[in-house]
Amino acid sequence: MGEALKPGAVIGILGGGQLGRMLSVAASRLGFKTCIYEPGGDCPASHVANFHFQKSYDDEAALRQFGESVDVITYEFENIPTSALDILEALAPIHPSRRALEVSQDRLVEKTFLRDLGLEVAPFANVESRDDMDAAVAKIGAPAILKTRRFGYDGKGQARLKSADDATAAWEAMEGAPAVLEGFVEFSCEISVIGARAQDGQVACFDPGENVHREGILHTTTVPANVPARLRTDAVLVAGRVLNALDYVGVLGVELFVTPAGLIVNEIAPRVHNSGHWTQNGCVIDQFEQHIRAVAGWPLGDGSRHSNAVMENLIGADMERVAALAAEVGAGLHLYGKAEAKPGRKMGHVNRISPKG
Amino acid sequence: MGEALKPGAVIGILGGGQLGRMLSVAASRLGFKTCIYEPGGDCPASHVANFHFQKSYDDEAALRQFGESVDVITYEFENIPTSALDILEALAPIHPSRRALEVSQDRLVEKTFLRDLGLEVAPFANVESRDDMDAAVAKIGAPAILKTRRFGYDGKGQARLKSADDATAAWEAMEGAPAVLEGFVEFSCEISVIGARAQDGQVACFDPGENVHREGILHTTTVPANVPARLRTDAVLVAGRVLNALDYVGVLGVELFVTPAGLIVNEIAPRVHNSGHWTQNGCVIDQFEQHIRAVAGWPLGDGSRHSNAVMENLIGADMERVAALAAEVGAGLHLYGKAEAKPGRKMGHVNRISPKG
Repeated sequence: MGEALKPGAVIGILGGGQLGRMLSVAASRLGFKTCIYEPGGDCPASHVANFHFQKSYDDEAALRQFGESVDVITYEFENIPTSALDILEALAPIHPSRRALEVSQDRLVEKTFLRDLGLEVAPFANVESRDDMDAAVAKIGAPAILKTRRFGYDGKGQARLKSADDATAAWEAMEGAPAVLEGFVEFSCEISVIGARAQDGQVACFDPGENVHREGILHTTTVPANVPARLRTDAVLVAGRVLNALDYVGVLGVELFVTPAGLIVNEIAPRVHNSGHWTQNGCVIDQFEQHIRAVAGWPLGDGSRHSNAVMENLIGADMERVAALAAEVGAGLHLYGKAEAKPGRKMGHVNRISPKG
Repeated sequence: MGEALKPGAVIGILGGGQLGRMLSVAASRLGFKTCIYEPGGDCPASHVANFHFQKSYDDEAALRQFGESVDVITYEFENIPTSALDILEALAPIHPSRRALEVSQDRLVEKTFLRDLGLEVAPFANVESRDDMDAAVAKIGAPAILKTRRFGYDGKGQARLKSADDATAAWEAMEGAPAVLEGFVEFSCEISVIGARAQDGQVACFDPGENVHREGILHTTTVPANVPARLRTDAVLVAGRVLNALDYVGVLGVELFVTPAGLIVNEIAPRVHNSGHWTQNGCVIDQFEQHIRAVAGWPLGDGSRHSNAVMENLIGADMERVAALAAEVGAGLHLYGKAEAKPGRKMGHVNRISPKG
């Protein structure tokens, strides 16, 4: 396998949540060991990993020890402190690259990157001051949505503007954080593509799924997406373009709005993605294994879909439905081992499969 | 779920090999923690478990500590010392039950149990002395096969008799261990059924697979088995009968010979079984999760098959083929994380799936 990691090698994973947990399981399937770096104790990923550094991201000695004890480093979230990456990159290869992180950590950089690539994005404007805000509203119009440039997820760090009158309230909701004003896009549905790129440049994408959100959090992903075949192809081509432009290694999630004028890229995530969880029960090789294969220098696996699938997230009190879900025919249940089912917290998901027909 | 274990509960597993490893992964999927008891260090199961007691089976204090820190106990091999079970059963429920272990630990007890259940088995006779050997050969005839009553696996502890002249050599090969002489069965193929029984008596079986052995070790399992539908149904009924007779909780493997006169039971294994590994890529719920569900008091899952499958074991030097296997379309690779690829050692397996048609 050339420079591919051999079974027995150690894969370091930054972040110990459910994505790290499912990456660890996928790594074990290929005979790799995993080492989790996560400040929190009893974290989901540590339950199924060989090693757990329960250390802070500003503990330089711990970061150094971690970097020296792994053969490659990957991550399950995009907001890794730059200072930690500076230390780690001298010690082991990091996949996906820092360029992918830089692009996706900042909405302004991300939108600019996508636009410069010739992809369609919502109209946007940088907002770093109250004056910027007025200029942005004048340029973009309303309705619009103001989003913090960094650290937003699951609908957090966002404020909607129904009209220009909401500009002050929206700006104040950012609490001084740099933001981006995005024009409101009239879309019929959201789809996403989970793409993967190997170290030799090989690209493979899973079939696009159709996403439904509730209260800003992904609720279901349905595969195949109920959109014309032409748009499914377009979506895959968009993912391929982003993967190649970033010289990307690993799995990337691309969220797209379906509009009468075609696809508009909403955002990209340089990691395995919630909307790709269906692959665990719909494909021979799931997104987690695909990611591990890429970062380990292995060939990508066969991501073709053997079944149709609907993934449903289990959030907070949905855990009360576990007994019923466990008895459901055709349902694959995946729980994350989190102790407390807080409102809005992702506790697990269920993949319902049916024949491809 | 009544007395079902809640996510977060700890499942104790005796034995840390690949079966324990894949049981741990399945347990994590349902939100359980796992605790492995295994004297060997760096064992396959410990890589994906929360806890590992690296202690001997005669360490009473360690066994006690293990028993007190888990909510239920199961195992991945049938030769657990009775003294260890005596200590553990006072501390936590053990599934499958000791009766299942007693039956499967001793070939004489096993064959007698199966025969008394009205199932067809090969003719057999107990051999505890040189005199018994002569009586057994006179009763059973030749060709025949002499097997130690206990601790045999993968063709070990067996001696073939082509004629009565081989009796002395066969007896001496047992080195004084009690044995059973079994009449040679002319069979067209071997099939196996992986059955499961829940705590409420619910029974579910996976589709029977057809097994091919090489040098006494399972080489491939093909599903569906290429035998008449009637025999596949018979096989499932045999498994159901054994499960109910033992008031069994968990997954059980039943190996059967297909003969012109119908099915003959070869042996049963009170655990997940190598010939059930195909379920990982052929079903929504695999044999490992089915076992965890049963021992945790959950309902059994949907074990229906969405694809055809051929499982191939990777033994010793087969590891040199990993690079090629990783690039194969339709192939799910599963490696066990064992450091050394010794001849005859099970290092992993590959599941090749194809549409059910």
